[in-house]
Amino acid sequence: MTSTDGRQKWLTVAEELATALRVDAGERDRRGAEPVAEVDALRRSGVLAIDDWATQQAVTRVVGAADANIGHLLGYHYLQVWRSGLFDSAPVGDDVFRAGIFSADIFWAGVSNPLDAALELRPVDGGFEVTGRKTFATGASVADRLVVSATDTETGDKVTFTLDAKAEGITYAGDWDNIGQRLTASGGVVFDHVHVPADQVLGVHDETSPRLSLAGLGFQLALAQLYVAMAEGALAEAAQYTRTTTRPWFLSGVDSATADPYILGTYGELVSETQAAGFLTDHASDKLYQASERGADLTRNERAETAAAISSAKVVATKVANQTTSRVFELCGARATAAGYAFDRFWRNARTLTLHDPVSYKAREVGAYFLTGEHAPFTGYS
Amino acid sequence: MTSTDGRQKWLTVAEELATALRVDAGERDRRGAEPVAEVDALRRSGVLAIDDWATQQAVTRVVGAADANIGHLLGYHYLQVWRSGLFDSAPVGDDVFRAGIFSADIFWAGVSNPLDAALELRPVDGGFEVTGRKTFATGASVADRLVVSATDTETGDKVTFTLDAKAEGITYAGDWDNIGQRLTASGGVVFDHVHVPADQVLGVHDETSPRLSLAGLGFQLALAQLYVAMAEGALAEAAQYTRTTTRPWFLSGVDSATADPYILGTYGELVSETQAAGFLTDHASDKLYQASERGADLTRNERAETAAAISSAKVVATKVANQTTSRVFELCGARATAAGYAFDRFWRNARTLTLHDPVSYKAREVGAYFLTGEHAPFTGYS
Amino acid sequence: MTSTDGRQKWLTVAEELATALRVDAGERDRRGAEPVAEVDALRRSGVLAIDDWATQQAVTRVVGAADANIGHLLGYHYLQVWRSGLFDSAPVGDDVFRAGIFSADIFWAGVSNPLDAALELRPVDGGFEVTGRKTFATGASVADRLVVSATDTETGDKVTFTLDAKAEGITYAGDWDNIGQRLTASGGVVFDHVHVPADQVLGVHDETSPRLSLAGLGFQLALAQLYVAMAEGALAEAAQYTRTTTRPWFLSGVDSATADPYILGTYGELVSETQAAGFLTDHASDKLYQASERGADLTRNERAETAAAISSAKVVATKVANQTTSRVFELCGARATAAGYAFDRFWRNARTLTLHDPVSYKAREVGAYFLTGEHAPFTGYS
Amino acid sequence: MTSTDGRQKWLTVAEELATALRVDAGERDRRGAEPVAEVDALRRSGVLAIDDWATQQAVTRVVGAADANIGHLLGYHYLQVWRSGLFDSAPVGDDVFRAGIFSADIFWAGVSNPLDAALELRPVDGGFEVTGRKTFATGASVADRLVVSATDTETGDKVTFTLDAKAEGITYAGDWDNIGQRLTASGGVVFDHVHVPADQVLGVHDETSPRLSLAGLGFQLALAQLYVAMAEGALAEAAQYTRTTTRPWFLSGVDSATADPYILGTYGELVSETQAAGFLTDHASDKLYQASERGADLTRNERAETAAAISSAKVVATKVANQTTSRVFELCGARATAAGYAFDRFWRNARTLTLHDPVSYKAREVGAYFLTGEHAPFTGYS
Repeated sequence: MTSTDGRQKWLTVAEELATALRVDAGERDRRGAEPVAEVDALRRSGVLAIDDWATQQAVTRVVGAADANIGHLLGYHYLQVWRSGLFDSAPVGDDVFRAGIFSADIFWAGVSNPLDAALELRPVDGGFEVTGRKTFATGASVADRLVVSATDTETGDKVTFTLDAKAEGITYAGDWDNIGQRLTASGGVVFDHVHVPADQVLGVHDETSPRLSLAGLGFQLALAQLYVAMAEGALAEAAQYTRTTTRPWFLSGVDSATADPYILGTYGELVSETQAAGFLTDHASDKLYQASERGADLTRNERAETAAAISSAKVVATKVANQTTSRVFELCGARATAAGYAFDRFWRNARTLTLHDPVSYKAREVGAYFLTGEHAPFTGYS
Repeated sequence: MTSTDGRQKWLTVAEELATALRVDAGERDRRGAEPVAEVDALRRSGVLAIDDWATQQAVTRVVGAADANIGHLLGYHYLQVWRSGLFDSAPVGDDVFRAGIFSADIFWAGVSNPLDAALELRPVDGGFEVTGRKTFATGASVADRLVVSATDTETGDKVTFTLDAKAEGITYAGDWDNIGQRLTASGGVVFDHVHVPADQVLGVHDETSPRLSLAGLGFQLALAQLYVAMAEGALAEAAQYTRTTTRPWFLSGVDSATADPYILGTYGELVSETQAAGFLTDHASDKLYQASERGADLTRNERAETAAAISSAKVVATKVANQTTSRVFELCGARATAAGYAFDRFWRNARTLTLHDPVSYKAREVGAYFLTGEHAPFTGYS
Repeated sequence: MTSTDGRQKWLTVAEELATALRVDAGERDRRGAEPVAEVDALRRSGVLAIDDWATQQAVTRVVGAADANIGHLLGYHYLQVWRSGLFDSAPVGDDVFRAGIFSADIFWAGVSNPLDAALELRPVDGGFEVTGRKTFATGASVADRLVVSATDTETGDKVTFTLDAKAEGITYAGDWDNIGQRLTASGGVVFDHVHVPADQVLGVHDETSPRLSLAGLGFQLALAQLYVAMAEGALAEAAQYTRTTTRPWFLSGVDSATADPYILGTYGELVSETQAAGFLTDHASDKLYQASERGADLTRNERAETAAAISSAKVVATKVANQTTSRVFELCGARATAAGYAFDRFWRNARTLTLHDPVSYKAREVGAYFLTGEHAPFTGYS
Repeated sequence: MTSTDGRQKWLTVAEELATALRVDAGERDRRGAEPVAEVDALRRSGVLAIDDWATQQAVTRVVGAADANIGHLLGYHYLQVWRSGLFDSAPVGDDVFRAGIFSADIFWAGVSNPLDAALELRPVDGGFEVTGRKTFATGASVADRLVVSATDTETGDKVTFTLDAKAEGITYAGDWDNIGQRLTASGGVVFDHVHVPADQVLGVHDETSPRLSLAGLGFQLALAQLYVAMAEGALAEAAQYTRTTTRPWFLSGVDSATADPYILGTYGELVSETQAAGFLTDHASDKLYQASERGADLTRNERAETAAAISSAKVVATKVANQTTSRVFELCGARATAAGYAFDRFWRNARTLTLHDPVSYKAREVGAYFLTGEHAPFTGYS
């Protein structure tokens, strides 16, 4: 863990990033361009090099509250680097990896949607060749380095390796056009006989390894953090609007919207529930960090407890994000629906990202663990 | 009341309109153009001439489910014609009014946002001149005839009159650019010394008249109907998607999304609550019709009961509309957030229109009437 | 259908019953005695003889709001008589049945818990003998006549018949001791070789008959009506308390609890949702009456539509009953938890009766009908 | 702070207490006797002497989950001792205080309902005499020592002092008979010229002192902790019942209630939300401890932040407690309403204690602090 001073320094940097992102978040959402400039801002700020878990989480929350797209990219960057470390051996031949996992100017992304057919990995001289297509590779098209998973066509092994994101044979479909998280560059990636040097292999996925199975949980935690950030961001922007722009209702008997009993009461409920989701998610984050630090000693029971903690956070954060980003409009009033404010982006982002995988099965998982101690299976989503 | 056959015929027409509107609802929402073609379709269909209250309500619901923008315009059209009839005397000199309030090719809209400063009405030879500016005049810029309210600068009376929507001196700001109800032409209207013939005056607003006070309730009812329609529309489109496109979750243990227990259970809850809101709103609609039919005999107690019934419907329908239009995404899955489907328009429409006036004060009103019998004041919103 | 005057007369009678029941509802709940006096009051009032469907429903709602126990007994009385009429032939030899199904002094109850093992019916001279045990036979121990179902041990047929509730060989276990609906005499019944005259047989249950299958729906509708009544009753008693006893909160800035914005707003929400549940349930009631009137012509599609309407009402009414009976305390304040008021009986009654069968499967049923048109199976619960 | 080992030891003791309390919690609730034996068990266990804040909180949660009555008494015991320490000087002449605040066999309670008229304190030789009546003095009648507040009739000062709970002139009304928290001995206390030695005075209440104002926040935090405990307790008992007794629904298609998708999903939601409330409350507890440790240096800003954190916890915990204790019945099924299980005690306890003061004003407070930075006033409830 880093020192408190170190964390505070990075939070200040994150706040500066957040302030800059807020300025034109609505306009950038409308344009829906690739987040090239935004990722560049992340590189320049230094936050890509943060190597302290709790600081990573806190910084992601701050950035994500201002712009959930960029928070998403940043959270996944930390995630890719962290999950690369779950393998026993580093890709020793990957100079960038060795030098760069803590490098401020290297932005990482991953290519591994578990619901797609697997990429095919064929042994060739000096390594492998990877071919195939994956959808929803958040951040890949604007990344420097990729973490990719593919199936060895000879052994059937699921192999994970790193690649230069600009390597020959990789093309980006640019086909992400959704109602929310519009700037996350979450389009498809096509690999056409892309060379994978042997020494860029991170390892073979052992499906029975509790430690390697943490990767899937990392994604779930990152999502929960972003949901909390979305609720926090919506509340912050709404409050700014209520304070400065909302007019008191003519039947309210008060002189200012900031004295309206219903506005105050609703802020109180939404703020309280968002905070609760935040602390639950922080707890889940601590659990995952601890599990991750256990290394090869991590037991299946510990892994199950960690999974349940993360799913619990995801259940609450999902509800809070969708509810808060929609209800804040009631705290601002009718004129806040003017397109120029683009306040709907909070809900569109939340609604999109909370569908990543169905929350009903997360609730089921938490219930089964509580009721019978059933362990969540090791999958890309649990 | 019309015959059941008559109603059925119009419902068939409404379904045809709805089917046509659904085809490109998403695309039209994105373009955000003035709904000229859509209002033309209303004219051609004949529905503008329906003069049976319950049929008007049912037709509005069907059209509104397919496209809440056009349902909004249609519901307000019926509303303007109906509220013109609340005055004791018709504007005898208005040929269009006499001939046209039941005319299929005359689309009516109103200009009367109660929260704006009043338009100024100055006596001139042969009538009046009206000058001023109003915001949020839904449908006015694509209307044939307008119902307008203004304040007589000499007497202080609030006078309501009809105008040709293309009369000299009227200009439309075209400044409606909001996140929802984008095609309702709800921009501002500027009146620059527009001539109002004396015989187009509907009457002077007597603020103590229960009957005239029904106008405000008519708007509230129309909103509640549209909220229900939005929920119905979102459920219908989601069901179509779930049936044809949603893939079963790999952990669900079922072969089809239509057999997923959580998807079925959530449909059941949302459908049930939407139906409840619908019957409550139908009841409120009956109450308003009955109150309206009472004419000058309408008592303050009857008016208060009617107001409470409508506010009750608005409270429930508001909740149902916002909740349903957001939660249907969970029934469709992540890929339903693709921009091409534009399923977010249901929520954006609901979120925008449910902010028309703060629902917390509607709940307060229902509570006060239930608890102490307190009558809602006669306002533009209650 | 009865005349409006007739209905109004019975509603007045029901209100009188309700007023009397309210006086000592809390005390009777605490004592938990068999509802002998209460059923006697029903007999004396004449309401047992009401033969108009809609009036039966309305009267049940009024009585159930005052005392959900007695509303439960009354609703089930109407239900037993009605469902006896679903069979093609009346039990011609049953003088009481012929004379008495519309008799004010005959209180009917049923014995047919579908989840218990079936009673055994053995052919004997002049009819049958029935033996076995059933649980949860609401009202049986205080009834005059019973409608009983048993399985013919020779044919395997499920046979329904009437019995004198005091017939030799019938004993009542008196073992109903639950947290709610304490006065519904819902204990077990033991049949020890009880003689069933042949001419008291109502008929054999044809499990494929849409018409006979309506019996199960009748129970579901009766439950939904009672749930609505519970919410209405809780709101009425709470309002009485708020008006007379609740003190304004010292930080509220108002002089009376009846002016507290949060109390008013919460009343408004609860009242609105209760009304919505009521209209939805009234609609379901109309559907069941219409289905019942269709007789042998009732199709499976019509039956499915009726079932869905009733389940929809049950889903909404369940939520409303549990929520309202719990939240009304917030409208009354801390001192309203004094045991003497026994306001918790509303929640205890609601919580107990809403568990009759799991509401999650009702929601599932509504969802499946909406999504795919799936018909609910013909069971004792659907 | 105590060592982790020390805390673990006390948690084991608390679990033993909890196990014993669970055995007859339902029966004791029905009897509603004074909790003499229970307080004795607390004395014997040693937990009354725990002097570590976080351990106190954790132990209260464990005991409160098993029996919210006894958790309430224990939480308030710690509270009284802690708030006595907020005054600058200890009551040096109070041997029991000096020796006893950490004594395992001294059970403390308080007498200070802020909404009652103040007790009157008259100077006499060697100290004071206190006279008057207070309601709702939780635990006083079974306590060893009391912390009492009264108003000096000469100076108007609000003075706090300790008393032997059996001192001459003190009588206990035994008039607590409410639907929940039945065993908390929360009846009234009458003081009839009770002598207060001068050296048992803790101090004069300075209404402008942030530090002394923490006492009111301590009560709010204790309530939030108990609400969380109630939800935890209800879930634990429900899970035990579901596992051992609940039968699968015949339409569920599964062999065991523990495999029912709706039961699992609902457990998941309730567990997740209860955990979120728990972590939020733990955070609030940390804030209050930190504020308390700041002593005279505590600023008004720090106090306001602490108050907001506690109110936030109370808002969420209130909702979770009421919702969870009611909904667990859906996870157990109809037979779980048998009076013998007394599962309704969780809801009755939650419903009663969550009305301590209106939660709507807590939400308002959180909202105002978030929106405008408004400080909660220093009162007995904020």
